[in-house]
Amino acid sequence: MTRKPAYTIHHHDHHTGWDNAIPPRLRVAPGTVLDFEVIDASGGQITSESDVTAVTRIDPGRVNPVTGPVFIDGAEPGDALKVTLLDYAPSGWGWTANIPGFGLLADQFPDPALALWSYDARGLTPALYGPGGRVPLKPFAGTIGLAPAAPGRHDVIPPRRVGGNMDIRDMAAGTELLLPVEVPGALFSIGDTHAAQGDGEVCGTAIESPMTVTLQLDVVKGAAPRHPRFCTPGPVSRPKDERGFWVTTGIGPDLFEGARAAVSEMIEHLGTTQGLSAVDAYLLCSVCADLRISEIVDQPNWVVSFYFPRIVFE
Amino acid sequence: MTRKPAYTIHHHDHHTGWDNAIPPRLRVAPGTVLDFEVIDASGGQITSESDVTAVTRIDPGRVNPVTGPVFIDGAEPGDALKVTLLDYAPSGWGWTANIPGFGLLADQFPDPALALWSYDARGLTPALYGPGGRVPLKPFAGTIGLAPAAPGRHDVIPPRRVGGNMDIRDMAAGTELLLPVEVPGALFSIGDTHAAQGDGEVCGTAIESPMTVTLQLDVVKGAAPRHPRFCTPGPVSRPKDERGFWVTTGIGPDLFEGARAAVSEMIEHLGTTQGLSAVDAYLLCSVCADLRISEIVDQPNWVVSFYFPRIVFE
Repeated sequence: MTRKPAYTIHHHDHHTGWDNAIPPRLRVAPGTVLDFEVIDASGGQITSESDVTAVTRIDPGRVNPVTGPVFIDGAEPGDALKVTLLDYAPSGWGWTANIPGFGLLADQFPDPALALWSYDARGLTPALYGPGGRVPLKPFAGTIGLAPAAPGRHDVIPPRRVGGNMDIRDMAAGTELLLPVEVPGALFSIGDTHAAQGDGEVCGTAIESPMTVTLQLDVVKGAAPRHPRFCTPGPVSRPKDERGFWVTTGIGPDLFEGARAAVSEMIEHLGTTQGLSAVDAYLLCSVCADLRISEIVDQPNWVVSFYFPRIVFE
Repeated sequence: MTRKPAYTIHHHDHHTGWDNAIPPRLRVAPGTVLDFEVIDASGGQITSESDVTAVTRIDPGRVNPVTGPVFIDGAEPGDALKVTLLDYAPSGWGWTANIPGFGLLADQFPDPALALWSYDARGLTPALYGPGGRVPLKPFAGTIGLAPAAPGRHDVIPPRRVGGNMDIRDMAAGTELLLPVEVPGALFSIGDTHAAQGDGEVCGTAIESPMTVTLQLDVVKGAAPRHPRFCTPGPVSRPKDERGFWVTTGIGPDLFEGARAAVSEMIEHLGTTQGLSAVDAYLLCSVCADLRISEIVDQPNWVVSFYFPRIVFE
């Protein structure tokens, strides 16, 4: 898309946590196109030179910074802010980590781990994973949100009604997102850009990668959805899906435990068939494999399936 | 695929419930290709002439019949039964129902509803939904399983470790499925064929449709997975994905409630944008829209997303 940005919000204009008292960096009219420079989710604590010790030293107070906020004229509680994601200009480097205490299988992976990525920022050819495999890339922002109405500082990690750290891998170029406005001006911020992620983000991190995001902000009067909604311009899984999938399942009465079982099985499968260590497989799953709810009606047991794209190894 | 069936298990050779004491209908060598005639999930209680009163009269004791069982020589506990799904010959008619007390939103949809489908069994062109829309078809079997080791009769509705009513929409032609064998001979049965279903099968039924399934049964010694696993031969969402998706989300600490919220929002969206009644939208979602776990690590709130394919209306 070719809409031209009128402003750039620079990466130093970021905040950690959501708070409607943070003064806006800019005030714009609806329809404005902007560039947002987004730093990585460690807030610069992990760099392309880091080793695993950097993971152990992460200061949680500095993680997941978001660039903004931007005040949109005329946005009022009850309206929807429409975010049209126009373009991502990725940096070409990224990291994926197992951060102790964080992630779907945190109990099974107590030790820190770090994988660094160097990728083709222009062509976005599948990125080489050190331990093995090539991962299709699809840049997007994990955290896109508005200031909540409730006063005070709100932790940035959990997503909420106004969006935030949703980590939805289809917030790629061309997607239109509707967020419910809770405060005058909406107070929009964005961060946590990822070069690739699977549904679930199972180890807790994706290919965390700084990039510049171009987007347009519009106000839809009186159209606040109860939860965020979005619309994708086309297929969401190409070319990742081209060779099909290996799929593991977790069957039982609890979706969370089903997801854990399916991911554990896939880690075992990748160990057996590809020779990956368990932690290497866990990180790889997080950046490319997808958690789906296959069945949620056949009481009392639900089926969660974990889809690993065969193209990574074939 | 062209492997030729050596036997046909006829539709009258079906059972309801799993029980390792049910005598096998046939004993075959590993590698055998068979045809299974599968009747619809109502066991013939709903026909192409039925109206909604048939839903209220369903005898639960006759639902979800499975054709079989087949004893596979050499299959022993600890082995995997490999099921290669070769071909589906669908009947061209089907039904989708809201059955009171069953389904993800059973509390919101207490009244019975029935939609009948007539579709192109050879070309599988998208099927016309009476209230509006055209649904891409992908025939598969919802119930594929083995007899459990535990004695006695086990309800057919919940899936379990040995498979059964998994309702995984990617059990289509070309998929290879591994099931853990728990009893000598494995005792394989199949049923509940669907012409189309979304991930989740949210209203509790799909396009329920009789068909004949051609498949091959093999034994992989000592390879029992803890839960069922499968491998798809290619993309799983084409052509359904061609125009992209409308997506609603549910954000919160419980995946089940998140799924309910996302589905409720989509029903509302389809009402607003397509003029569908709530129950019509609910049934349509069940046959074509997909539940995904977008994020399961950003404590304490997870994101469940519900993907409705735009191609149905565009």
